[in-house]
Amino acid sequence: MTGKHTDRAARIISRCRQIATCTEVPGEITRLFLTPPMHEVHALLRDWMEAAGMTVRIDAIGNLRGFWPGLVPGSPRLLIGSHLDTVPNAGAFDGILGVVLGVTIVEELGGDLLPFAIEVIGFSEEEGVRFNKPFLGSLALVGKLDADTLARTDRNGVSVRQAIDDYGLDPTPLPAATLAGGAFAYLEIHIEQGPVLESEDTALGIVEALVGQTRMELIFTGQANHAGTTPMHLRHDAIAAVAEWIVAVEAYASSHQPLVATVGRIEAAPGAGNVIAGHVTASLDLRHADDNARRASVTAVLQLAEKAATRRGVHVTSAPQLEQSAVPLDPHLTAVLCRAAAQACHPTRRMTSGAGHDAMILAPTIPSAMLFLRSPGGLSHHPDETVLPQDVEAAIATAMEFLAQLRDDRTNPKDGHA
Amino acid sequence: MTGKHTDRAARIISRCRQIATCTEVPGEITRLFLTPPMHEVHALLRDWMEAAGMTVRIDAIGNLRGFWPGLVPGSPRLLIGSHLDTVPNAGAFDGILGVVLGVTIVEELGGDLLPFAIEVIGFSEEEGVRFNKPFLGSLALVGKLDADTLARTDRNGVSVRQAIDDYGLDPTPLPAATLAGGAFAYLEIHIEQGPVLESEDTALGIVEALVGQTRMELIFTGQANHAGTTPMHLRHDAIAAVAEWIVAVEAYASSHQPLVATVGRIEAAPGAGNVIAGHVTASLDLRHADDNARRASVTAVLQLAEKAATRRGVHVTSAPQLEQSAVPLDPHLTAVLCRAAAQACHPTRRMTSGAGHDAMILAPTIPSAMLFLRSPGGLSHHPDETVLPQDVEAAIATAMEFLAQLRDDRTNPKDGHA
Repeated sequence: MTGKHTDRAARIISRCRQIATCTEVPGEITRLFLTPPMHEVHALLRDWMEAAGMTVRIDAIGNLRGFWPGLVPGSPRLLIGSHLDTVPNAGAFDGILGVVLGVTIVEELGGDLLPFAIEVIGFSEEEGVRFNKPFLGSLALVGKLDADTLARTDRNGVSVRQAIDDYGLDPTPLPAATLAGGAFAYLEIHIEQGPVLESEDTALGIVEALVGQTRMELIFTGQANHAGTTPMHLRHDAIAAVAEWIVAVEAYASSHQPLVATVGRIEAAPGAGNVIAGHVTASLDLRHADDNARRASVTAVLQLAEKAATRRGVHVTSAPQLEQSAVPLDPHLTAVLCRAAAQACHPTRRMTSGAGHDAMILAPTIPSAMLFLRSPGGLSHHPDETVLPQDVEAAIATAMEFLAQLRDDRTNPKDGHA
Repeated sequence: MTGKHTDRAARIISRCRQIATCTEVPGEITRLFLTPPMHEVHALLRDWMEAAGMTVRIDAIGNLRGFWPGLVPGSPRLLIGSHLDTVPNAGAFDGILGVVLGVTIVEELGGDLLPFAIEVIGFSEEEGVRFNKPFLGSLALVGKLDADTLARTDRNGVSVRQAIDDYGLDPTPLPAATLAGGAFAYLEIHIEQGPVLESEDTALGIVEALVGQTRMELIFTGQANHAGTTPMHLRHDAIAAVAEWIVAVEAYASSHQPLVATVGRIEAAPGAGNVIAGHVTASLDLRHADDNARRASVTAVLQLAEKAATRRGVHVTSAPQLEQSAVPLDPHLTAVLCRAAAQACHPTRRMTSGAGHDAMILAPTIPSAMLFLRSPGGLSHHPDETVLPQDVEAAIATAMEFLAQLRDDRTNPKDGHA
């Protein structure tokens, strides 16, 4: 790594940490959708973008959009972005790293114009905390922010529409926040927020798809009874039934990788140590990049619940809570990203994203690719969330090669994708 | 069953239901230690006892004590009793049935005097609800009510001592509540509060021992993590660990009958459906009539917890909360009770009691025996708790034979026990 390269990674990390000081809660990083500290974030990014020669505006949903022109007016646009908001008591890199990297990419061009324009987007909302609904920024960009969403209210009774107005923006031209066409690709760079890359000692991951997800609640109903006077063979123990099921879910998912299945919430009633539980509710979160595989797994896992319950004379019911299809990313763009990393001499791992990202919203409209950076300790949504400087350097080098590949593609179309 | 016998069972049930109307909470049966409705209970029982020729007093802890003399002054005494208090929203038979049966037994003597006196005792407290400590009545009887217990306060800040005073009793002569010697046996008749007798279509159970008990809390500490981004093999899932353990506990107890082991309380943190649980606390309640078997089971079950945790990189700790030895009942008196039931042509099942009873407190001081009546549906501590008239008749017939056997024993000592 050259000194210059060390410097640019350090600068990116430093900028992320500077933006982390823009917070609603002193001493932690908490920055919800269009809250006052977002003004400071916009001001910092605007300064850096304008210094790099970009034209900056804030659209009607509060997305910050920095434009770097292409060789000719009306050139197609490459979008690069991620989100500006955070969860409560967050880390300094989730989302914002991808925006700061976008600025750096334009800076690294050193004034060069490409056969395409670049728009760096800082999405105003992705985490879904303030209005209990995620992706407000990217949904607006693709014209999918509906009236119901605009009418949602936060815990203070403020609607999305009012929040936009309070921030000093005009919600009326929201349709104008949508992409005006001409965008041929979207690149999102994001921390992995998981332990896979670290466990394989790899800096970068190439995301092929964002997993689909099923969330359900299961209710096991047995018979509450005296822990001392009820012999084992006369019990209808709802906790024992759910426990057998949880172990079976874990075993099933482990033998059907890359499926992940989680029971994260369990509540037993009456919940006394000396009473056999008569009633247990448990959550199921099941994710897979292949929707058919996910649906088959849901069926199998519900059968396992039935089996664990029935043999104890326990009754089980399930209620769906969320059903979300997988979102594949663009195969051609993903291949370009892989080549770019190889060209930059950084080994990568192809993987799926188990978490949602803005790319999930953009991908059905714009060919999209995602680059993951290793998360030390797999840690995210936590103050200790971090990135390694060498991984940031690998990401910027890969991104610059990605631009070069796209430039070459557009200059010498080889396979009809350009 | 003769008409007369049908009548006496119906009268016993009717008296229990009448006493059930003495309640702190209209519409349910709730009668805690020395609360106002206990005055009505005392009045009813006193009337029935005095009508049967008994001498009645209320001792310093509020136990109601009805005395029927023996053939000669100073005859040894047979104690017959159970408790007068209830849990909140209780049934009409838990405890009180044994006291009402005691009165009926004296009535059935028809004025006959035996070579021993009979004292029917309605213990003032057994459930432990008001002062979060059970057996106050029977502990006082055997002189084990200590100063710490007398100083305990209820949820209104009233001490045990004050409650005695408020009821109109004098707590000063509490030592006088103790048994003055001369009691040679204690018989307690109680509903089973479990499903065993019903499942075997048997009216009566002869209790050989009250089980010993271990209660513990286990804490499983894994690593909270994202349910979507953490593959199965990189998890430290505390819920999965505790689930494997619960299934193992159930299997262990099932294969080590008559051991019973229960996990009735489980609390997982952070407790969100999309987060792998990092922290779970769970209760363990383990009971066996053989203390050595119980201790060995605790060791085995803790090893199972260690095994389930370790293979997931989860840490487990355990903290004891209660350790209570088993209480064997008197083998000779128990044999007499078995013979009595056989003589009365009622098949019985020898069993242990998984719940605590006053006999547990008296047995170390006075040879004690216990007779269980089948609990329809295994139901207790519930408004639907009931008894079958034919089982009540079987109990009274067995009790009268028990008295006859004791009389014969004392008249013609055969084996040195009389």
